[in-house]
Amino acid sequence: MALVVQKYGGSSLESADRIKRVAERIVATRKAGNDVVVVCSAMGDTTDELLDLAQRVNPVPPEREMDMLLTAGERISNSLVAMAISALGAEALSFTGSQAGVITDSTHGKARIIDVTPGRVQHALDDGYICLVAGFQGVSQDTKDITTLGRGGSDTTAVALAAALNADVCEIYTDVDGVYTADPRIVTNARRLDRVPYEEMLEMAASGAKVLMLRCVEYARRYGVTIHVRSSYTNKPGTIVTGSVEDLPVEQAMITGVAHDRSEAKVTVTGVPDQAGVAARIFRVVADAEIDIDMVLQNVSSTVSGRTDITFTLSKDNGPTAVASLEKIKDELGFTAVLYDDHVGKVSLVGAGMRSHPGVTAAFCEALAKAGVNIEIINTSEIRISVLIRDTELDDAVRAIHAAFDLGGDEVATVYAGSGR
Amino acid sequence: MALVVQKYGGSSLESADRIKRVAERIVATRKAGNDVVVVCSAMGDTTDELLDLAQRVNPVPPEREMDMLLTAGERISNSLVAMAISALGAEALSFTGSQAGVITDSTHGKARIIDVTPGRVQHALDDGYICLVAGFQGVSQDTKDITTLGRGGSDTTAVALAAALNADVCEIYTDVDGVYTADPRIVTNARRLDRVPYEEMLEMAASGAKVLMLRCVEYARRYGVTIHVRSSYTNKPGTIVTGSVEDLPVEQAMITGVAHDRSEAKVTVTGVPDQAGVAARIFRVVADAEIDIDMVLQNVSSTVSGRTDITFTLSKDNGPTAVASLEKIKDELGFTAVLYDDHVGKVSLVGAGMRSHPGVTAAFCEALAKAGVNIEIINTSEIRISVLIRDTELDDAVRAIHAAFDLGGDEVATVYAGSGR
Repeated sequence: MALVVQKYGGSSLESADRIKRVAERIVATRKAGNDVVVVCSAMGDTTDELLDLAQRVNPVPPEREMDMLLTAGERISNSLVAMAISALGAEALSFTGSQAGVITDSTHGKARIIDVTPGRVQHALDDGYICLVAGFQGVSQDTKDITTLGRGGSDTTAVALAAALNADVCEIYTDVDGVYTADPRIVTNARRLDRVPYEEMLEMAASGAKVLMLRCVEYARRYGVTIHVRSSYTNKPGTIVTGSVEDLPVEQAMITGVAHDRSEAKVTVTGVPDQAGVAARIFRVVADAEIDIDMVLQNVSSTVSGRTDITFTLSKDNGPTAVASLEKIKDELGFTAVLYDDHVGKVSLVGAGMRSHPGVTAAFCEALAKAGVNIEIINTSEIRISVLIRDTELDDAVRAIHAAFDLGGDEVATVYAGSGR
Repeated sequence: MALVVQKYGGSSLESADRIKRVAERIVATRKAGNDVVVVCSAMGDTTDELLDLAQRVNPVPPEREMDMLLTAGERISNSLVAMAISALGAEALSFTGSQAGVITDSTHGKARIIDVTPGRVQHALDDGYICLVAGFQGVSQDTKDITTLGRGGSDTTAVALAAALNADVCEIYTDVDGVYTADPRIVTNARRLDRVPYEEMLEMAASGAKVLMLRCVEYARRYGVTIHVRSSYTNKPGTIVTGSVEDLPVEQAMITGVAHDRSEAKVTVTGVPDQAGVAARIFRVVADAEIDIDMVLQNVSSTVSGRTDITFTLSKDNGPTAVASLEKIKDELGFTAVLYDDHVGKVSLVGAGMRSHPGVTAAFCEALAKAGVNIEIINTSEIRISVLIRDTELDDAVRAIHAAFDLGGDEVATVYAGSGR
């Protein structure tokens, strides 16, 4: 008997009918002879509705109370799925994150999991129950307050439970039927990948592939949890995320896929005095505002002026804060201006095979040049190439690279609207 | 510095605007120099919406999961009120029933409070916070599952917390501005009562007065908690529920008011053999179905047939179950038929003064006769007279009795639509 952890996103649970269909899948998994633990996101628009209510009573709501508010969403979906399972004649028990032993730090809104002690879940499994656990939430070790795990939190809950319960697989049900070589909404002949090693999946997630959140993949790699990405609307085989690239057949190891990201913006600080410590000071100010930066470009200093430009990218959400923080030190550092540009996009090619194929970067740039796409910043890791371009050219760029590396397949991707958390 | 517990019902919290108004009242109470603990019901229609969702996934949802589902409603309202308070510059912390130490038995859907251990609430009060506690919910001592307290649960939460925290007063905010001599929606000159002793309030609540639930008044009497019933829309003085009738000025002690109840139905078992034990068997069958009965009437047995009719009233909700249970023992007991009638209403006159005034019952019946209202069952306690009548005549009966006992006043009652739980 295997232990299967399943995670369903909000769009899979957006109505009573969809909840019933999810329940059927869960009961079928149980009837196939598996122990089953299910993690549910909040139903469809619940989170947005709660956020809207919060905004109306307080434009800057306290984070502790936001967590108390938002976690109600997963409680609702969770207990409804338990009821739907019960209607099918199976026995289910739902648990809050706290009841399931999801222990976190006290960082409201983006708490980190410190430990998972799923004693109650294990007991219920031993007693033959299907167990449901509210995703996205935990309880602070120090304050005993309710916390949320932030974006991708339900996926992380599922992987963390799978690790703590020593599950055989963690199935993540989403609105696409697997991990593709590119977003099938952009590239019609994008190919579903049967298997992706952790490291490539990490680079894909970090580069904007939305099917799995970075954090959840990091957790899975760290604890060796096999993730199975599947669609909750079909029975297609999906994608297995596990192991390292060394385990893959050689012919498959070349390139994993093309990822893109529309969520970044570009900040350029112009006329920066080319003195030791000035660049460090700029990045320190941004870091102190708790803003992560992604790509960085420092132009060669002009020998005439002794000044340079520093460009970096960051999440659009953090753009205004970063600009305001930098404006404050403008006089102190003596730079000329802070420019902000949120009409950019990032396209990345990921694949462990590029380590041993020196021509990949050249072919990548040639494909973009041929498509008439101008590169603004380029950034590479051992197994990834990323470039910043105009957002209007992003779709063309994804298609051009996907075609240049011959990543397409014959299978038609199944795509549904919506996304969970 | 006094400690005030306030409870707000669902209609007082049905929108962001109403939540903000409630927050203003809470902050004003704090600024007046009080420690404040607030218990919130779920917002307006939240509970009905959740019940509807549950029905759609499972017509007979498991009670444990219903409790998990419904308690989300109070979590939402509670945290939103905390946010609204914070927007006014005051500091608030919200707690679930479990966090606030509301310990219950394991009877899902109508759990009884076993103990209240509000250590976290007391600490937060000591640290200067306004505390919010989700009403209607607790945690089972044995199973650690989430429970709900059933109808009137939020009022009971408030009174139980007031008792455990040794509060000076428990303010129950509702959609009327106090306890009236009759429902002001029926009797336009109904008079607000400044003060009602526990015993009279118990009889009023048991007789259908909706302003306070029976259970909450029982709890208050047992622990000596003073309840202040007030409107959340006005600053009128409201009604204080406390003490015994002996404490009242003599001229006030006569009659408290007229209560009515549309929620009951009448069951008549006809042709019951007049033998020892048959009536007991009938009531045992109903009791075993966990149905409470209210009024009972057994006609004098006919000497010719040796048979009698037994009539009793019960909540309409339990009608079908009671009838089905009785039909099952029809052949065994040999009675003729089970008749069911849900077009009945109950009107009651409550007042400790009637103990020493023998003419009250006569005057009560005369008033009904004069109004052309026929009495079907009559039932009395030391301080109450109740009669069962046709539901179409209920409003007329309430007005006739109210007038006959000269209970009216000059003040105009303020009445708002809606009700909390």
